[in-house]
Amino acid sequence: MNFNMEEAIEVLERTPQTLEYFLSGLSDPWLQYNEGEGSWSVSEVIDHLIEGEKNNWIPRLEMILQEGESKPFPPFDRYSHLNKESERSIEQQLLEFKTIRIQNTTKLKELIKPELHLEWTGSHPAFGVVKVRELLSTWVVHDLTHIAQIVRVMSERYRADVGPWKEYLGILKTTK
Amino acid sequence: MNFNMEEAIEVLERTPQTLEYFLSGLSDPWLQYNEGEGSWSVSEVIDHLIEGEKNNWIPRLEMILQEGESKPFPPFDRYSHLNKESERSIEQQLLEFKTIRIQNTTKLKELIKPELHLEWTGSHPAFGVVKVRELLSTWVVHDLTHIAQIVRVMSERYRADVGPWKEYLGILKTTK
Repeated sequence: MNFNMEEAIEVLERTPQTLEYFLSGLSDPWLQYNEGEGSWSVSEVIDHLIEGEKNNWIPRLEMILQEGESKPFPPFDRYSHLNKESERSIEQQLLEFKTIRIQNTTKLKELIKPELHLEWTGSHPAFGVVKVRELLSTWVVHDLTHIAQIVRVMSERYRADVGPWKEYLGILKTTK
Repeated sequence: MNFNMEEAIEVLERTPQTLEYFLSGLSDPWLQYNEGEGSWSVSEVIDHLIEGEKNNWIPRLEMILQEGESKPFPPFDRYSHLNKESERSIEQQLLEFKTIRIQNTTKLKELIKPELHLEWTGSHPAFGVVKVRELLSTWVVHDLTHIAQIVRVMSERYRADVGPWKEYLGILKTTK
């Protein structure tokens, strides 16, 4: 096991500003492109990250601390952000993500004492018993998987443009 | 075709500072981890990006402008950065990447007039005839593929830690 609370927080704290730096001011075609029917644009990925901050990570953590395994987490709708027509600019979305992530990492540090809580368990509606350590590791890898998704969607725009070089570009070989 | 010179430069200009924000100050285990024998750590990926700035993109572009298809590009050694034992901190590596990328995007804007040069051709040692547009698109997607690699290597550290959630984390299903 490699999980370490301080190292995990290092990543959680960096993600929003990293994305803010990468995506703010980018031309719309980069932000609105998707990989086809039912896939997400960069802008939709940011809405999904915001949704997770509101309804997934901290609420589930609090449920483990308060209820243990006695009540399963309410299911998290991974597609709920698609129901709203986002009229906001990418800069507004990124600002919301950054703001709520700061609140949530602050709360995380208050709630979780690593020497005490990492092995505490809750009940996941699909997986059954899960640990605080697993939830926190997943929060980190969830950031990373969506950063990977963002750069993959952007790469896809240039699939035809790179010509023969696609053979050397691993990102054009992964699938959504 | 989606390539557009201004949009391409938007990405090229953002990559170094994005990585600087994401990676500066990260604990060593994030930076030194790799996916096993022969695979690259985050720190080695940055050295590879620096190598490309020095010996790949601009030199090849200049060769197309000067020689056309008459002389093939000298082959670019994608592993040459592994021959040097890097004694530098990640912050020093990222600073070098940022500095040389600024020089190179400045040079790119001087060298290439999109209305004139995008269809000019050179000779790639493996692929044969390639276009300026393809080289520039590849430069962009090359940044994106290595950002994807960085977050994939970092995710791999937590493969066991996420427990049952690995089923929902696409990044743990891609291969190097």
